[in-house]
Amino acid sequence: MDLDSIVKHPLSLDLYCFGEGHFEKHHITSISQIAPFLNQENKFWLNITDLENMDLLEEIKNLFDIHSMTIEDILNNQERPKVEIFDHFILIVVKMLYTRNGIEDLETEQVSFVFGKNYILTFQEHSFDIFDSIRARLENPTSKIRKHGTDYFVYALLDAIVSEYYTLLEKVTDKIEMLEEVIVSEEKRVKLSEIYNQRKSIQQLKKVIWPTRELLSIIKKSDSFLIKRRTLPFINDIYEQTVEIIENLEMQRESITTLVEIYMTNISLKQNEVMKTLTIIATIFIPLTFLAGVYGMNFHFMPELKWKFGYYLVWGIFIATAVIMAFYFKRRKWF
Amino acid sequence: MDLDSIVKHPLSLDLYCFGEGHFEKHHITSISQIAPFLNQENKFWLNITDLENMDLLEEIKNLFDIHSMTIEDILNNQERPKVEIFDHFILIVVKMLYTRNGIEDLETEQVSFVFGKNYILTFQEHSFDIFDSIRARLENPTSKIRKHGTDYFVYALLDAIVSEYYTLLEKVTDKIEMLEEVIVSEEKRVKLSEIYNQRKSIQQLKKVIWPTRELLSIIKKSDSFLIKRRTLPFINDIYEQTVEIIENLEMQRESITTLVEIYMTNISLKQNEVMKTLTIIATIFIPLTFLAGVYGMNFHFMPELKWKFGYYLVWGIFIATAVIMAFYFKRRKWF
Amino acid sequence: MDLDSIVKHPLSLDLYCFGEGHFEKHHITSISQIAPFLNQENKFWLNITDLENMDLLEEIKNLFDIHSMTIEDILNNQERPKVEIFDHFILIVVKMLYTRNGIEDLETEQVSFVFGKNYILTFQEHSFDIFDSIRARLENPTSKIRKHGTDYFVYALLDAIVSEYYTLLEKVTDKIEMLEEVIVSEEKRVKLSEIYNQRKSIQQLKKVIWPTRELLSIIKKSDSFLIKRRTLPFINDIYEQTVEIIENLEMQRESITTLVEIYMTNISLKQNEVMKTLTIIATIFIPLTFLAGVYGMNFHFMPELKWKFGYYLVWGIFIATAVIMAFYFKRRKWF
Amino acid sequence: MDLDSIVKHPLSLDLYCFGEGHFEKHHITSISQIAPFLNQENKFWLNITDLENMDLLEEIKNLFDIHSMTIEDILNNQERPKVEIFDHFILIVVKMLYTRNGIEDLETEQVSFVFGKNYILTFQEHSFDIFDSIRARLENPTSKIRKHGTDYFVYALLDAIVSEYYTLLEKVTDKIEMLEEVIVSEEKRVKLSEIYNQRKSIQQLKKVIWPTRELLSIIKKSDSFLIKRRTLPFINDIYEQTVEIIENLEMQRESITTLVEIYMTNISLKQNEVMKTLTIIATIFIPLTFLAGVYGMNFHFMPELKWKFGYYLVWGIFIATAVIMAFYFKRRKWF
Amino acid sequence: MDLDSIVKHPLSLDLYCFGEGHFEKHHITSISQIAPFLNQENKFWLNITDLENMDLLEEIKNLFDIHSMTIEDILNNQERPKVEIFDHFILIVVKMLYTRNGIEDLETEQVSFVFGKNYILTFQEHSFDIFDSIRARLENPTSKIRKHGTDYFVYALLDAIVSEYYTLLEKVTDKIEMLEEVIVSEEKRVKLSEIYNQRKSIQQLKKVIWPTRELLSIIKKSDSFLIKRRTLPFINDIYEQTVEIIENLEMQRESITTLVEIYMTNISLKQNEVMKTLTIIATIFIPLTFLAGVYGMNFHFMPELKWKFGYYLVWGIFIATAVIMAFYFKRRKWF
Repeated sequence: MDLDSIVKHPLSLDLYCFGEGHFEKHHITSISQIAPFLNQENKFWLNITDLENMDLLEEIKNLFDIHSMTIEDILNNQERPKVEIFDHFILIVVKMLYTRNGIEDLETEQVSFVFGKNYILTFQEHSFDIFDSIRARLENPTSKIRKHGTDYFVYALLDAIVSEYYTLLEKVTDKIEMLEEVIVSEEKRVKLSEIYNQRKSIQQLKKVIWPTRELLSIIKKSDSFLIKRRTLPFINDIYEQTVEIIENLEMQRESITTLVEIYMTNISLKQNEVMKTLTIIATIFIPLTFLAGVYGMNFHFMPELKWKFGYYLVWGIFIATAVIMAFYFKRRKWF
Repeated sequence: MDLDSIVKHPLSLDLYCFGEGHFEKHHITSISQIAPFLNQENKFWLNITDLENMDLLEEIKNLFDIHSMTIEDILNNQERPKVEIFDHFILIVVKMLYTRNGIEDLETEQVSFVFGKNYILTFQEHSFDIFDSIRARLENPTSKIRKHGTDYFVYALLDAIVSEYYTLLEKVTDKIEMLEEVIVSEEKRVKLSEIYNQRKSIQQLKKVIWPTRELLSIIKKSDSFLIKRRTLPFINDIYEQTVEIIENLEMQRESITTLVEIYMTNISLKQNEVMKTLTIIATIFIPLTFLAGVYGMNFHFMPELKWKFGYYLVWGIFIATAVIMAFYFKRRKWF
Repeated sequence: MDLDSIVKHPLSLDLYCFGEGHFEKHHITSISQIAPFLNQENKFWLNITDLENMDLLEEIKNLFDIHSMTIEDILNNQERPKVEIFDHFILIVVKMLYTRNGIEDLETEQVSFVFGKNYILTFQEHSFDIFDSIRARLENPTSKIRKHGTDYFVYALLDAIVSEYYTLLEKVTDKIEMLEEVIVSEEKRVKLSEIYNQRKSIQQLKKVIWPTRELLSIIKKSDSFLIKRRTLPFINDIYEQTVEIIENLEMQRESITTLVEIYMTNISLKQNEVMKTLTIIATIFIPLTFLAGVYGMNFHFMPELKWKFGYYLVWGIFIATAVIMAFYFKRRKWF
Repeated sequence: MDLDSIVKHPLSLDLYCFGEGHFEKHHITSISQIAPFLNQENKFWLNITDLENMDLLEEIKNLFDIHSMTIEDILNNQERPKVEIFDHFILIVVKMLYTRNGIEDLETEQVSFVFGKNYILTFQEHSFDIFDSIRARLENPTSKIRKHGTDYFVYALLDAIVSEYYTLLEKVTDKIEMLEEVIVSEEKRVKLSEIYNQRKSIQQLKKVIWPTRELLSIIKKSDSFLIKRRTLPFINDIYEQTVEIIENLEMQRESITTLVEIYMTNISLKQNEVMKTLTIIATIFIPLTFLAGVYGMNFHFMPELKWKFGYYLVWGIFIATAVIMAFYFKRRKWF
Repeated sequence: MDLDSIVKHPLSLDLYCFGEGHFEKHHITSISQIAPFLNQENKFWLNITDLENMDLLEEIKNLFDIHSMTIEDILNNQERPKVEIFDHFILIVVKMLYTRNGIEDLETEQVSFVFGKNYILTFQEHSFDIFDSIRARLENPTSKIRKHGTDYFVYALLDAIVSEYYTLLEKVTDKIEMLEEVIVSEEKRVKLSEIYNQRKSIQQLKKVIWPTRELLSIIKKSDSFLIKRRTLPFINDIYEQTVEIIENLEMQRESITTLVEIYMTNISLKQNEVMKTLTIIATIFIPLTFLAGVYGMNFHFMPELKWKFGYYLVWGIFIATAVIMAFYFKRRKWF
């Protein structure tokens, strides 16, 4: 998700009241205004982005009879994704992942849901447009989200978040495949730290998705009256998506290990090639230079120097030596 | 399986109705034509390849009372292999693997089975000839497939698919053994990316076979009335085949790790050999060249130059030095 | 925690007696002075740092009816962190980690808690100021620590200790990130042993935190009457913190593996660069030197020597050869 | 086991009928001849090597009321070792390992046992002399094998097979220790593929022994009336042997990993030594050669050339330079 | 434990009869002499070192009603450490580890205990002085060993053995730390096989301690009447010691992996340094030598040769080139 899509909502809260064939939207300015909706047939959704307003949270805590530890979980943005099932409500803490500039730079945003029989409270630091799709579906009279209970609503939210994970997985996969192509084709030089950054992204994704999978598994198996039987196949569906994502991350992690190996081997091969070039040139010319040096000596008595064709003979030796050497290297497949 | 074997069937569907001593084949053009077969003694099989015809699927859903999530599972070709056991039918989603051009380039095709007491529905995107063998067995009056129930029919389908996995495993194994031979014998230069491609194929195979093994294990342990006791040994047989394949894949993966090690060592050894050649030539001739250079100096007073046998003496030194060096390298086992 | 913060308390023991709306602090000089507090409504806390005073421990053992093996566990500072749940008291052994000079040099200090219905005994070798925060909270009339039971008190102690682990984790993480930056940027040369030291710190942290996580898990699941239901969410909170720390340590360990890889690759790349420099210089000049050597030979008959522009021609050959070589290396992207 | 020990038995089958104080050996030529022995007090053993005689197998199937899947398991020599416990008989499929030429070239032979209350049927492709020891014990009137039931007989067979595994383990261990000695002492050059072959042998052994351990564990825990309580300690004994073998194989596998490391390090060290030799020679002589070259220049005005002791001075410089360089390398511990 | 401490006891057996306030020592020469002690209130201990005297073992077997398989376990010194709990006695098989010359050369000795309600039989091949401490404690009237039952006696024996493991762990740890210091400081050259030997020692220790931990865990959980509830905390104590040892061994194993890495890196770094030296010298002098060669050519027409300051100019070029090259290498931080 792009951060450009963050829209700062005004401090006044929007309350969405909905049900089969029913949809109201209210601007509320104090929590007490919620009271009339509490024991209705219809469900309502309240999205709170103002997590620093402690009074607001205190009022919510009292109105919905939420444990103080739950409020702390919502406020502490270091929480691992988790679900806590209470008698009359369920708390779900998940993480949204988004990236400002490239997949290497993942950022995490905590989103918490508290939902009971007919209400859903969502808590987030920034208001992303991810919830806009939910709003749109609420306004559509024939959408499932109106007919089903609060558990289906929460499923829709989780589904939106897990879909984002998929998108990120695809970005990482694309990047790794691109790196692989460049490395295998040896077209361009890649820095090892680029590969390393992908490994880091995978680690960060895994750190978020593992506990998400766990929490979905707990919801699946829970026997809370808040999770209806007919919602379970939907929950199971996103659970299987997380399993799929984790499997793919694991495969990408292995791909990276292989990429590093290929990278290292390429360095070795290149070094080998450099060494061969040096060796071929040096082993051909060093003996020749020696021979030239010999006939550059100034001994008074050096019979060859006076031979008429001495000079040509020496050139003959030079060329023969070079050719023999070249043949030798050719036979050893050095070039 | 080769893709050449894909035969495009006409849009009209073939309905195979069979039982002990009974076999009919009908061309149907609308789902309503199935109705008379529904409550018969005999079983029937319908193979649907037209997965984009949503009306057809809707009719099937209603006729067989299938959950809408099941239809979604059938349509979503990103599903992991799985089994879902419902009260009156079982859904099995598996993957067919095939390869257009070489084992490095595996493609996946989703196949879904829905079967109840006396019907089997199979859903696939393309119609492979893999089902032709089933058709042939259906036409044979004495085949087990006619006598046994729908569970045996499904076993026959799964058996055909798992056999394909075996074939692919063998192809990978052959390729790896071939690579091993080439690398160990150092005959030809192999690119590391070729080994890497085999690792990828193994990964892809494992990704498909692991959940298949799991689903077979679930079927084995299920107590659905649709899986009869006498079919269990057959199911167990293909289950054990998947275990065997997974074990073999694991062994091949280890082989690849070893191959990479040998590959790397060969590079190192070759580099070592290159270095030795350079060192032997250089260390023999560099001192000699120095000596030749000494007697090429133009000092006015250099007594050796006037010695009668100075030149021969120097050659003596040259040869002696070279021989001593050669002995030294010989003793160190450098060549 | 810095060791500078260790304050040597006098041998006389401080007894803190507290309850809702109640706080007393007594200087006691003998264990018998505790007796009046034993069966009160209020709880009391006694911190023993004098672990070599065997008489004192014997008296405590008798007064609180503690198993002799428990006393041995408290005295043996090689004990792994653990919890032992007895009928009328619980023993918790944990480790405090602190560092005198840098995160590479972790030291371990054993702290044991024994607590029953209304008493908490803490045993430690040195008195760290970590307990000062507890003291401060005890003196605050509205603090939870006064209202809740001994289990909450123990939670507060464990929370303080686990927070220290967090601090250490952060220090290690910072150090590793710093190393990573230096290694990736290749600014400064890092010794491999520095990376190695971080690995060691992580090992030491894990060795302490793994069993701590385990003991918290046991407390969570225990059904001792000493652990009240309303304290469980707090225990669960620090349990989740230990899980979080372990996960992070695991990620850091992987980071280190990657760092070592990058480190090794950098060495290889540098060596490659050195080799290339040598090869370029040598392969350009060795043939030229040979040619110069040729025309330094003293053969009586060498026609080129008498050519008028022979010398300039040779210089032309020198330059041409050098330029061709340079082009060749350029094309191979050697510089 | 050596293949030389394979003795081709005639097609006529030997039937061994035995019991306490009883031993008969019959040559039978048709399965119907077994009938009189079926309901006796005594037990009998029939060894079938003629697995291609389908009529024979069909008769056996009918006579002993064996499931058709069991016959398939016996015929399919790709079966993993396994046990299947039926109501009135038990099927055990195991693998014999033998080696024609050296431990690197293991071959596998499937052996199946079917045993009921008073009969043991053994199926194998070749008749190895491994069963000769059983025959010998049968002829001995005081041997346990006569007194105990068919389960003890099967134990004796399994014991013989597991003992063979031990022998193979020892051969692999010996080979690895030999390789280790050669590699550590650097006496002889070893090819990496030799180490690799040992790794393969270990893999093959593990592939056979793992499921054998499993099947023994299943027999141990089975409550079939065919496995008597007093036989259990014997079964447990071979079970523990397989555990021991697996542990040792694991240790050998680790040894191999270490061997490869040492091997690689030795290559690196040798390369280092080669480089040092080159560097020492080159860095000493290259500057000297330069100096000699300088005084080989033909400038008309070079004052040193006319010095009386110029030549000796230059030699002085040569020697001094060489000595200083040698000292430098000595101090750096290069030789 | 040093082997020097092995004392060969005479063949006559010592029988120690003890109880609270009771201690007798008898020299017995035949097993029948034990009979009067069998049904006493007091316990007795018999240590058998003469494992080749089959008559003795047969008598013991009959007197104490021990299973023949148990005697075989005692005799077979290839047994893994294990416990077997029978109705009226318990068999414990453990391994003593000792070292003749250095930690690299561990040897194993099997010790078996059989104990019932009031007797302990210990079987060993050599009589180590490890049991001397037990003898000393038996003679001390106030020792726990006299008061408690046979289970406490066995605990004391196991404790002595596990303490020896601790000592060996410390020796390995010391050796590894010493190696680490030498390798990190690069003071002395270490052979990789020395590190390898430590890895082997760790493997051997683990092979013995893993099953020991397992057997202690089984004793802890057993509900045999022979293990009294009050002995359990003691058993638990040595159980935790084995866990501690295993953890430490695991850490040492990781240390070794790191050591090997550092070792390899040091080789690479040293090679890098060697290469740099060569490259610096060669790249500085090779061009200079070329230039000297140029002016050593014998062309008739070379104007520079006649210049008055030609020779000095050339020296200027020599020095300038060398200085520029040196600056270049300095900037690249090559020296």
